[in-house]
Amino acid sequence: MTVFAKILRGDIPCHKVYEDDQVLAFLDINPLSRGHTLVIPKEIAATLDALSDDAAAALGRALPRIARAVCAAAGTREFNVLQNNGPGAHQAVMHVHFHIIPKTPDGRGLGIGWKPQAFEDAEAKALAADIAARIR
Amino acid sequence: MTVFAKILRGDIPCHKVYEDDQVLAFLDINPLSRGHTLVIPKEIAATLDALSDDAAAALGRALPRIARAVCAAAGTREFNVLQNNGPGAHQAVMHVHFHIIPKTPDGRGLGIGWKPQAFEDAEAKALAADIAARIR
Repeated sequence: MTVFAKILRGDIPCHKVYEDDQVLAFLDINPLSRGHTLVIPKEIAATLDALSDDAAAALGRALPRIARAVCAAAGTREFNVLQNNGPGAHQAVMHVHFHIIPKTPDGRGLGIGWKPQAFEDAEAKALAADIAARIR
Repeated sequence: MTVFAKILRGDIPCHKVYEDDQVLAFLDINPLSRGHTLVIPKEIAATLDALSDDAAAALGRALPRIARAVCAAAGTREFNVLQNNGPGAHQAVMHVHFHIIPKTPDGRGLGIGWKPQAFEDAEAKALAADIAARIR
């Protein structure tokens, strides 16, 4: 059982900021900036691709309202939403979680490394068709 | 009007991978890795905090099914979902967009800078209460 599942069961405390039937949100205890909040589904799933449509919709619906409150409390209008899947993609707890990370006036927040690669139109056309065909 | 609004109007082409009543997804033309996909709401909103609950729920609902297809096509099970708000938070196009960025076997993908700060329990308790009180 993950630490987030234990939080959902009430076995471990958290600094809760929001809860509804399908979603729980609480402060990250290793924050990148003031107000750094985690938003998790009550449904047990390790990664986003394993989450049900309904749980994913409930998470999506909760994000704007939580983000507004986080930013207001943190004193910023800029923020990043990050959701990692797999240890190689920086996921530490194997229960789906969205980070809401304010970019605060002190300069703290998420660091982003961005190295685009070449994009070849004909290859992209084939790739888009391949992805589209795999969506059910 | 943003470039994404123009794509939604059909004025600019894209490599589409998914579309429903409220959501469009297409390949990022400056991909961090093969399969890097953008998922956007048809509702016009610059940042996530300005998005309606319904549009945000539709986005959330679409993410797992698109992510599964992107990962299958990219040949990986690891990926990051990133959504930036504000130029200081790395947002380049002022229309809400979620990046789905595969962590591909060649090592490409999102770079993440992670510098946690101290977390003091009493201050966190007050902060969580402050955020919770701001959520409507």
